[in-house]
Amino acid sequence: MQYFPAALQELADQFARLPGIGGKTAQRLAFHMLGLSMDEAQEFADAIITAKRTVHTCPVCQNLTDREICPICADEYRDHSLICVVAEPKDVIAMERSREFGGVYHVLHGVISPLNRVTQDDIRIRELLGRVAQGGVREIIMATNPDTEGDATAMYISRLLRPMEIKVTRLAYGVPVGSQLEYADEVTLSRALEGRQEM
Amino acid sequence: MQYFPAALQELADQFARLPGIGGKTAQRLAFHMLGLSMDEAQEFADAIITAKRTVHTCPVCQNLTDREICPICADEYRDHSLICVVAEPKDVIAMERSREFGGVYHVLHGVISPLNRVTQDDIRIRELLGRVAQGGVREIIMATNPDTEGDATAMYISRLLRPMEIKVTRLAYGVPVGSQLEYADEVTLSRALEGRQEM
Repeated sequence: MQYFPAALQELADQFARLPGIGGKTAQRLAFHMLGLSMDEAQEFADAIITAKRTVHTCPVCQNLTDREICPICADEYRDHSLICVVAEPKDVIAMERSREFGGVYHVLHGVISPLNRVTQDDIRIRELLGRVAQGGVREIIMATNPDTEGDATAMYISRLLRPMEIKVTRLAYGVPVGSQLEYADEVTLSRALEGRQEM
Repeated sequence: MQYFPAALQELADQFARLPGIGGKTAQRLAFHMLGLSMDEAQEFADAIITAKRTVHTCPVCQNLTDREICPICADEYRDHSLICVVAEPKDVIAMERSREFGGVYHVLHGVISPLNRVTQDDIRIRELLGRVAQGGVREIIMATNPDTEGDATAMYISRLLRPMEIKVTRLAYGVPVGSQLEYADEVTLSRALEGRQEM
């Protein structure tokens, strides 16, 4: 016997397909949508379609944008000879928040991960090499996450870039600002020691 | 500076309005939607609108349905003189799964909860009294959740029903089947003792 009206079940199934949303949560979200006004539900549905229609990747840096070229790549006042390579669009936001970086970005849309069957051809490495080959690039800062896959991806790309004779750097590892030494793990601490700088 | 394309931000905002979805999760879901094909995104948007258009409450039991009268209320073989009162549509599904109940339901769509500003007039008590007043009801089983608000709501309704001289019962409290006594809390255990039955 089917306990739910078909349309409600279908909506719950759609939610359940989203990452990190289990069956129970999907049901709860579907019920919640029924509680919205028709206008609110329409707005939600429209937001999905509008986002799909207008948002695409910037042909230069591969970040998400709704313009022909993203605002950062289109900004004349930024240093286009300095490229910061990140895994995801949200990492661009994190970097921009620091207000320290005046260069441009390259978004890989993932990291190499054999366990998840993501190979070097599945992320936007080719596009990065193409940018570098066009010339005018002075330095590339690898800013993938400081974990195994992020490190391996950074290492792989830096090897590909070696013949092009461009400076390739990596974000510094160390103890986070405002943290307490006693809670830092030993790997972070040993990396912080290795990278110690004169005062 | 706006880091996200406007349409992506709008979609993330829509997700963030859903219950239990925080800002970070909303962003992740919005990114995920961009990764879907246009057809898949359209299906999701359509599911929202179709659910809103076709699903309404059954005029008899207030459960959600896409038919004029819900399948349970329309079923001649069920005992329409026995009404099980539950708080939410999902509780109907839980009861039906037990395959033990042959009567019909009444869905309150909430419980009385002064803390959340839900009064007796905000849930479908009036509709239940209307059903009972039409006659033909033999027994009402209160099956709201065994917590403070569920109990208080059951108690309130049973008082309203007292002048109508109908049998009102409550689901038994006790230790859950398959559980271990040592992990049962003392309130459950004392209720299980009170409700002990001859073997």
